[in-house]
Amino acid sequence: MASTDPHDLVRQALAGDRRSLARAITRVELRDPGVAASVAAARVRRREGPGAPHVVGITGPPGAGKSTLVDRLIGHALDAGQRAAVVAVDPSSPFSGGAILGDRVRMERHTGDDRVYIRSLSSRGHLGGLSSATSEVVDLLDAAGFDLVLVETVGVGQSELGVMEVADTVIVVLTPESGDAVQAMKAGLMEIADLFVVNKADRPGAEALVRELRRSVELDEGSSWKAVVRAVSAAEGRGVDEAFRDAAAHLAWCLGDGRGAWERRRGDARVRLYLDLVAEDARAGAAARLDADLDAAIRAGRISPHDAARGGR
Amino acid sequence: MASTDPHDLVRQALAGDRRSLARAITRVELRDPGVAASVAAARVRRREGPGAPHVVGITGPPGAGKSTLVDRLIGHALDAGQRAAVVAVDPSSPFSGGAILGDRVRMERHTGDDRVYIRSLSSRGHLGGLSSATSEVVDLLDAAGFDLVLVETVGVGQSELGVMEVADTVIVVLTPESGDAVQAMKAGLMEIADLFVVNKADRPGAEALVRELRRSVELDEGSSWKAVVRAVSAAEGRGVDEAFRDAAAHLAWCLGDGRGAWERRRGDARVRLYLDLVAEDARAGAAARLDADLDAAIRAGRISPHDAARGGR
Repeated sequence: MASTDPHDLVRQALAGDRRSLARAITRVELRDPGVAASVAAARVRRREGPGAPHVVGITGPPGAGKSTLVDRLIGHALDAGQRAAVVAVDPSSPFSGGAILGDRVRMERHTGDDRVYIRSLSSRGHLGGLSSATSEVVDLLDAAGFDLVLVETVGVGQSELGVMEVADTVIVVLTPESGDAVQAMKAGLMEIADLFVVNKADRPGAEALVRELRRSVELDEGSSWKAVVRAVSAAEGRGVDEAFRDAAAHLAWCLGDGRGAWERRRGDARVRLYLDLVAEDARAGAAARLDADLDAAIRAGRISPHDAARGGR
Repeated sequence: MASTDPHDLVRQALAGDRRSLARAITRVELRDPGVAASVAAARVRRREGPGAPHVVGITGPPGAGKSTLVDRLIGHALDAGQRAAVVAVDPSSPFSGGAILGDRVRMERHTGDDRVYIRSLSSRGHLGGLSSATSEVVDLLDAAGFDLVLVETVGVGQSELGVMEVADTVIVVLTPESGDAVQAMKAGLMEIADLFVVNKADRPGAEALVRELRRSVELDEGSSWKAVVRAVSAAEGRGVDEAFRDAAAHLAWCLGDGRGAWERRRGDARVRLYLDLVAEDARAGAAARLDADLDAAIRAGRISPHDAARGGR
């Protein structure tokens, strides 16, 4: 039976009990500090380098076929004798708090498999917490012994790009139809993508998109790794072998020549996570201290949000 | 000449000097507390109710035609003898900090007009600050005497929905092609939309989308205002009159039967802004206090981000 004590819960999760793993992740979502501390205390297989596990981020606009690609990559990992986990980060509405689970259905063929763990993670109404919760869940899955952790986002907004910081290798999935989304986020995508997958490659415009991306990659002077652009048809399985090999090649680079770049990225992500946690703690503290009088005064405009924030310092 | 003193700058901006207005907004983006305080101190036309000015939020996936609609709505406002401002909130990459200004070009026919003010606002690499900066800029434009303030976002992610909290009336612009984006964000869109504009209404699938949205609106029990679903072809100007009237009807509702609902929304937004500001202040403080030793320890993993955050309390 799954324990309610965070330390026992984490111990059981790491020992392979899936129900305990699910509960521990829920605790992370709800920002239970005990679980994070227990994961840290366990120090089993702490992520000190790239590839243990290989954390692959998958982002791109809605409808690009990310879930289909994830499904294919899981199949590849299983064929290679690996255990794979998927963290699907859902940009739930900050208003309703509801998570979108539709895409999960497409991965159902793996849900009965003990070597695969699939989990949705919602932000529970709070933007900043999404990256930090994802990072903690990846630590937990690492400690639980998965070889491949796929972090998939719905959409390609700012918060989704932030979530990608946790990954060793970032795959940006696009289709010929995603032209406008690409334009809108181009600078951000160029900066995070290690591999561009142009999915639905049989559709008109795919070749032009591949060419455009390759040109942009060539022009990008900032990075020592030149992003690979790969035409794929995930639904039919075409190009997926190659994409899997591309991701493995990027991991090999992280372990070799790219080790310094990987460590800088990891360091930046850790510092950002520290600042996120400080901000979250302050928000949670202020929310807990918000009494009825102050709440009413802010709502009625008797005190401005700025003055209230200054007063709370 | 534009002053560098925040109080003088705001005074000149409110007196109609556009260069001072532009500089004051830049100061808000850079989180200069002096400007916010000066706007508050000026207390000219402080927004105590809906419609003074009418703040209309416009969101939707990239490529839906938001800028074209904004351009049309500006034209309508001018015909009605109003002064109009546009705040285009760009989800700049958290990595590069670059803003996307391409869409602005489409509004250029109004840029020479003294009754129109168009401004892009980027998040400068920080998610949480986007809503609060937008809210302050709207206060500034309010004080500067604009009758209509259009707040447009690029994309329809979580942060974009948060920005919409500042609006009296929220227009969600969709096209027949935006099906997947709609599915992904459906709960959030339903909760914020006062008016759905189905743009490019001559394309296949537009009628089906209109029907689906109307059905969803009917099923939505939570709101006392039933969102209007309007088929529009912004490029040809068809349906734009109607959309303008729909927005005016929603404002009339806010001033009448919907006053209580408007006040709750405004109150929620103010409390959220207060919590955002507390979180931002804490983050900025921690970043300022982050010395080389702590930075190196976090990067190297000698101290976990969680322990560092706990230590800073």
